[in-house]
Amino acid sequence: MNQESNGEFSVARVTRAWYVACGSRELRGDPIARKILGIPLVLFRGPDRKPSALLDRCAHRNAPLSLGRSVGGRLECAYHGWQYDAVGVCVKVPGLVGEAEKTTREVPRFPAREQDGFVWVYATAGVEPAGEPYRLPATSRGYTEVRRTVEVESTLHAALENALDVPHTAFLHKGLFRGVGRTHRIRARVTRSAMQIEAEYIGEPRPEGLAGRILSPSGGVVTHFDRFILPSIAQVEYRLGSENHFLITTLCTPVEDFRTRLHASILFRTRFPGWLARLILEPVALRIFRQDAEMLKRQTAAVRRFGGEHYTSTEVDVLGLQIWQLLKRAEAGELTPSEEWKREIELDV
Amino acid sequence: MNQESNGEFSVARVTRAWYVACGSRELRGDPIARKILGIPLVLFRGPDRKPSALLDRCAHRNAPLSLGRSVGGRLECAYHGWQYDAVGVCVKVPGLVGEAEKTTREVPRFPAREQDGFVWVYATAGVEPAGEPYRLPATSRGYTEVRRTVEVESTLHAALENALDVPHTAFLHKGLFRGVGRTHRIRARVTRSAMQIEAEYIGEPRPEGLAGRILSPSGGVVTHFDRFILPSIAQVEYRLGSENHFLITTLCTPVEDFRTRLHASILFRTRFPGWLARLILEPVALRIFRQDAEMLKRQTAAVRRFGGEHYTSTEVDVLGLQIWQLLKRAEAGELTPSEEWKREIELDV
Amino acid sequence: MNQESNGEFSVARVTRAWYVACGSRELRGDPIARKILGIPLVLFRGPDRKPSALLDRCAHRNAPLSLGRSVGGRLECAYHGWQYDAVGVCVKVPGLVGEAEKTTREVPRFPAREQDGFVWVYATAGVEPAGEPYRLPATSRGYTEVRRTVEVESTLHAALENALDVPHTAFLHKGLFRGVGRTHRIRARVTRSAMQIEAEYIGEPRPEGLAGRILSPSGGVVTHFDRFILPSIAQVEYRLGSENHFLITTLCTPVEDFRTRLHASILFRTRFPGWLARLILEPVALRIFRQDAEMLKRQTAAVRRFGGEHYTSTEVDVLGLQIWQLLKRAEAGELTPSEEWKREIELDV
Repeated sequence: MNQESNGEFSVARVTRAWYVACGSRELRGDPIARKILGIPLVLFRGPDRKPSALLDRCAHRNAPLSLGRSVGGRLECAYHGWQYDAVGVCVKVPGLVGEAEKTTREVPRFPAREQDGFVWVYATAGVEPAGEPYRLPATSRGYTEVRRTVEVESTLHAALENALDVPHTAFLHKGLFRGVGRTHRIRARVTRSAMQIEAEYIGEPRPEGLAGRILSPSGGVVTHFDRFILPSIAQVEYRLGSENHFLITTLCTPVEDFRTRLHASILFRTRFPGWLARLILEPVALRIFRQDAEMLKRQTAAVRRFGGEHYTSTEVDVLGLQIWQLLKRAEAGELTPSEEWKREIELDV
Repeated sequence: MNQESNGEFSVARVTRAWYVACGSRELRGDPIARKILGIPLVLFRGPDRKPSALLDRCAHRNAPLSLGRSVGGRLECAYHGWQYDAVGVCVKVPGLVGEAEKTTREVPRFPAREQDGFVWVYATAGVEPAGEPYRLPATSRGYTEVRRTVEVESTLHAALENALDVPHTAFLHKGLFRGVGRTHRIRARVTRSAMQIEAEYIGEPRPEGLAGRILSPSGGVVTHFDRFILPSIAQVEYRLGSENHFLITTLCTPVEDFRTRLHASILFRTRFPGWLARLILEPVALRIFRQDAEMLKRQTAAVRRFGGEHYTSTEVDVLGLQIWQLLKRAEAGELTPSEEWKREIELDV
Repeated sequence: MNQESNGEFSVARVTRAWYVACGSRELRGDPIARKILGIPLVLFRGPDRKPSALLDRCAHRNAPLSLGRSVGGRLECAYHGWQYDAVGVCVKVPGLVGEAEKTTREVPRFPAREQDGFVWVYATAGVEPAGEPYRLPATSRGYTEVRRTVEVESTLHAALENALDVPHTAFLHKGLFRGVGRTHRIRARVTRSAMQIEAEYIGEPRPEGLAGRILSPSGGVVTHFDRFILPSIAQVEYRLGSENHFLITTLCTPVEDFRTRLHASILFRTRFPGWLARLILEPVALRIFRQDAEMLKRQTAAVRRFGGEHYTSTEVDVLGLQIWQLLKRAEAGELTPSEEWKREIELDV
């Protein structure tokens, strides 16, 4: 079965990093369960409504704390009623004569923040985070923002590569976006720095697919950037003519090795009013998401069935290998800002 | 994923012991399949209607014998018609010219008994059992007995600890039993002998939950014993005032490492007639069972997800560790009656 | 759990051999996915409509090629549109400026043939096949052919033994075929050569079951051969009186270790017109298939549950061990035509 497979998967576990655990509005009165890098977490709000993240396992008999409830900002286990405060210290053991607090009764705590409408969790327990969560681009006048969350059955790397890949759009999303009309030779200028990799596509005419024709009926020049920002952010920036501007920032959360949650913020300004553009573009965007999710699932099933990946790449896989190298460096903790470079390639779109 | 887990589970496999395989009425004309300690068994009745237990695998092509039928007290395989007698000797090979009986054609036999309405099986094949099955307490005048069988997704140990644990009743079964009104400081006297561990709770007032108020509206003193008897019996004895007496004996069968079958005999006398008490108490009891089964399932899923248990205990976990020690001693065959002791602790209920 | 099991399964993987991948009519315009010996394959038709078989994995990002489509006899991946020709050479990489063909972009090709209404695939990639696929017996005047495909959850060996086993028919298919009336002592003459093993049953009277009574109401002599032909063909030949002749050739495909696909060609001539015989016999045959498939599934589940087989055999398991020996020799590549012999045994049917 493992024919011509190296038995390896593109799984990088960058643990010293912030990931979106849930949307702010998902975390209300009751605790909820989430997973990051395979670690089961319980999220709840403390007495000051600030979010807390603990390992989702009672120190006593290992019941999931997410089955419990919040009692005045303390998390109470549903099995025997042990209570934990916002930093995971056990503050009550029902029935016990004597002190509840004891180091062995603590539950590991993961740093948590609330920012830009998301609850972020740092994926290493009990440490001081290196830095703060990524800040989403600010919206400005004339812009509309749409948010969408989807979960895909793939590695973080495969999801990121898919989100920032140009050639597949002409096939998997044929007609919606690219893949009709004749191809054009364009250039991609790739810039790598310590924490990110960016491709700028130069000379691309307006795509001939449905979305392009609606947005800019008279054609026009395209400005197009694809960016990967460590540890898990994919950003696509698109200008079509002077009127249309799209900035799609996808905050990826590695739920498990082969499961990734995508939190997309789609910020746009078009020649149409926001509500109308949304009405027109939403069905197209959802179809693209579904097609990508289905293909990632099938790709993942195939590599798992073969016991590992057996990839080959070409020049037009512009960012995939770079994303992988940055992830591996970050996983190993090598974040020295040494490897900055620029290069250019040609491709036909 | 295995964060702070020792990679171990409280799984003890006491093989030299009797377990309930099924109720007498479940075993009629046709053979049935049951599992004990992961061993697939076929149960059938011999020519004298006595129960037999064989490994559920035909010696010939390994078809499950439980797919077959009983032919005059012999078990006939459904695939090629091989027949076995009550002790697992092959007595017929259809088509074969010559003798059917041969040692290589035997199927391992497990000692079996019928007693107190249950079919008991000894979990080691081909040996003389050490002792006989546990005898259920006899019913006497004025008592009603109800029997219930439930299967829970947990280790034998987790099921036993749950059955004999006091503090969880105030949380998991809040309001049904304990957990309303103020708490009281009581004492637990723990007595351990070679084959059992018993806790007597002294000074407990009538529980304030629904069940307590119905049974003894005027209050009254509680006499309460929790007992674990090797290899797998949990017994709760409860007297409330002079009129109410409950004796709940749960015969546990370790089906697989993480699956346990509970055969409960609930013997009781209350101030109400038996049929009325049953009418009132049955819904309460069933709800308690369902809550325990659900929590055990979630606890089991959590410990398996973490690759092992990571428990911490306090004084009010009165019997859990003791049950585990007795199970481990029995698993290792150390049943010397050396470690008898008494101790007392205080707790708030 | 592994009580008295040797931890082994009768799994032989004969890779240098032809197997039926699908029926000719199953492979039309679009590529289809099939599996042989656990290897995922994509089948498609080249520009000349000849069948091709490639490993079902795009060289680029490992998407299953069977999700793609056929473009002028080339196979196009659904993800990024890479195209492969009939021998697995990559002939197009969309977007790429420069040559598509490159050895690292090839996909392993398995030899394929179309013959007798089946697409056959050789289970080793990139080699010259040793020999050609098995030729089905030609139909002649007065004969009707019915084809049926079923998938069973068992090893190839268990499926072959079941297909060529006589004694089980009296039990598993009781009344349909054998198993009514008294038994008769007959002889089986077994002839083994390098590539096949054959049993001829001599002296068998007309079976008393439903099928036998319909076909030959006045009784009559039976001529009966059971044959196994390497690597995976089971053949049963049956003559009942002068009018009835059945030749059932089952081409088995080992899909996975515990999953086997049976392609049966049932060629027959009876005292009834073909359409009428078919009308009468088809329900009987389908019931036999279902009973065998169900038993094989249960047998497989049992041996897997025990972690291996623990078989014992008798003289009346006429072909089972011989089939196994031939499979193991073929798996090891030992096909020297040395071990020819004849022997006779007696059995009661």
